Amino acid sequence: MDHQPFRLTAILFLLFQCSIYVVSQNKTKPPSENKSEAAIRAVIEAQRDAWNRGDIDGYMDGYERSNDTVFVSGDNVTRGWQTVLERYKKNYSTREKMGTLTFSDLEITLLGKDSAVVLGRWHLQRASDEPHGTFSLIFRLTKQGWKIIHDHTSSA
Amino acid sequence: MDHQPFRLTAILFLLFQCSIYVVSQNKTKPPSENKSEAAIRAVIEAQRDAWNRGDIDGYMDGYERSNDTVFVSGDNVTRGWQTVLERYKKNYSTREKMGTLTFSDLEITLLGKDSAVVLGRWHLQRASDEPHGTFSLIFRLTKQGWKIIHDHTSSA
Repeated sequence: MDHQPFRLTAILFLLFQCSIYVVSQNKTKPPSENKSEAAIRAVIEAQRDAWNRGDIDGYMDGYERSNDTVFVSGDNVTRGWQTVLERYKKNYSTREKMGTLTFSDLEITLLGKDSAVVLGRWHLQRASDEPHGTFSLIFRLTKQGWKIIHDHTSSA
Repeated sequence: MDHQPFRLTAILFLLFQCSIYVVSQNKTKPPSENKSEAAIRAVIEAQRDAWNRGDIDGYMDGYERSNDTVFVSGDNVTRGWQTVLERYKKNYSTREKMGTLTFSDLEITLLGKDSAVVLGRWHLQRASDEPHGTFSLIFRLTKQGWKIIHDHTSSA
């Protein structure tokens, strides 16, 4: 009976350790989720890098090559990968118009194993102005990796 | 042996019927998908009806009551169900400002069993103007049914 208090302390200590473990587990995302987020972030960073070397085709590699891919802005819905590409090439016909693109405040929310929504801000540094705004991207995991199927972009 | 040609014809006929059945099955969406789309459409229609009777609280019932719910428009990200409600009540403080809301060109794309993206157009008929534009909604199937977790709305 002499060891009873020590045993109780030991049990309480173990329970405490377990609770720390449970809390830490809840805070950590499953590895597959971190992997998906990293892959999505890589697509967005590759788009930014392509844009900033004047490579719209490379930038467009972030979008799924599908007739269903949509780019939404203001009152306009641009449908189909090829049409979205042509819109970009028309609106950003020179290196000066493209400027330097940065993204910020990226928030990636996985909607399942193969889809995600990304909220963020975009900013173009140009000689004469600094257009900027927000975007919501729907990503899907395709055979070619994570690709944007739906882009809704707003200007400030 | 006399019945062999007839039997062959019967088998070919059955195979033909099967192929028609397979093709027709592929064209039809699974019942669960139609059910989800109908449920999502019902949420959007309930929002429109609530708006058109001046009931912003009823309209807000379409959004998930979460601090993570986001409304994105122009350069602004409004976060949290309560904050989104307050934004609507501030921007549409009178029945005249609310006008009559219609939605059109709704396109529902399921991203899995419990998430979907909806693309559409909105239009407010008011005494002095007719604001309109596009929206992209991310829906999730919650314990309270299908709810909007992310709304990106643009004006023309």
